[in-house]
Amino acid sequence: MNRLPLEGKVLKENDRIAAGLREQFVSHGILCLNLISSPGSGKTSLLERTLENFRPGEKVAVLTGDIQTENDALRLSRYGFPVKQITTGGTCHLDARMIKRALEDWRVEELDYLFIENVGNLVCPASYDLGEAAKVVVLSVAEGEDKPLKYPSIFFKSELLVLNKIDLLPYVPFDVEEAAGNARRVHPGMEIIRVSCLTGHGVHEWAKWIERRRRLVGAPEAAPA
Amino acid sequence: MNRLPLEGKVLKENDRIAAGLREQFVSHGILCLNLISSPGSGKTSLLERTLENFRPGEKVAVLTGDIQTENDALRLSRYGFPVKQITTGGTCHLDARMIKRALEDWRVEELDYLFIENVGNLVCPASYDLGEAAKVVVLSVAEGEDKPLKYPSIFFKSELLVLNKIDLLPYVPFDVEEAAGNARRVHPGMEIIRVSCLTGHGVHEWAKWIERRRRLVGAPEAAPA
Repeated sequence: MNRLPLEGKVLKENDRIAAGLREQFVSHGILCLNLISSPGSGKTSLLERTLENFRPGEKVAVLTGDIQTENDALRLSRYGFPVKQITTGGTCHLDARMIKRALEDWRVEELDYLFIENVGNLVCPASYDLGEAAKVVVLSVAEGEDKPLKYPSIFFKSELLVLNKIDLLPYVPFDVEEAAGNARRVHPGMEIIRVSCLTGHGVHEWAKWIERRRRLVGAPEAAPA
Repeated sequence: MNRLPLEGKVLKENDRIAAGLREQFVSHGILCLNLISSPGSGKTSLLERTLENFRPGEKVAVLTGDIQTENDALRLSRYGFPVKQITTGGTCHLDARMIKRALEDWRVEELDYLFIENVGNLVCPASYDLGEAAKVVVLSVAEGEDKPLKYPSIFFKSELLVLNKIDLLPYVPFDVEEAAGNARRVHPGMEIIRVSCLTGHGVHEWAKWIERRRRLVGAPEAAPA
């Protein structure tokens, strides 16, 4: 986004609303994750695999953001959990106000997990706190191992890197160790999980990470910076 | 980007500078192309293949935009043509002022071709005219065939779609006909070239397109909308 004088005000207002959301999530023990990536890195496929792993009746819901179309909500609603599309109509990121509005007619306090799929954009969503417990950045191996250096903000701000589409590794010039090194140059100690939504590789590890992360919700050491 | 009241003013100022650049390019018969895509769709690889195709001494130059790093300029400078990196330091797109400033110490009037590689972002760069003759959108087949519907603005505004990484088609769930149909739903009649920068497939067709497009520079029917 542009460095406009107005930007500070917009972000301050966003942070105020996000803080309210975070308080709500924490007080009810809800793990809210904000998934961010380029277009086509596989956020929706990852969420499909994620929802498959939950048992019917588990208290999980998804908000999915796009500039246009309700395609992702259609894909994700097949798993029997509440899913709502947020269509931004041109805006390149989700903001806290959109999340608040989308949650208005849900009984949020009854949830255990809330997944937010951001608009496909590796830049702007990094600036907008949505009240999440953690940001998760998804990077497809088709995108190249230099991305953490080129888009450092989102890699710095995300707790976890999901390295997706690893089934493509034999066919693309992508060096996993270099990618991991680049991610950890920007974000020392960053956790990385390798996933293929096609083969299912790593999906269990991702599910375990989610479980572990939920136990930290509200714990003092997990407070957002 | 946010729909802020200030946005109109910023875009108006951008359009003024872009119009000046366009006049300069047209009056000297320079073809300026603005390449836009998601991060990791292969803009830089496409430009490498493009520069390989020019003979030494041809009057071609590249401006390449990134949030951080000079990696792309390093990669592209190996071909012996002038290349300059524009590091935006957080801004999610190139704007006309950045282009104007980058060109200040070049003898622009001596160029025949100027390629601009925008910041990897399928949303925000669509709003910023850089004075180019045409926008070209690059989409990798690893990203999914739904992208034209989800990010309609850039597909509508681009003259050409370069469908890149087609060497991956056997390994990804991507339907080329559906992607083409989606692109043409947003932009009827849109030209599409299938390319693999790994195998070289389609690179010749892309080079021919560039040649043809240059002959239209300054022609009344090629005037920007």
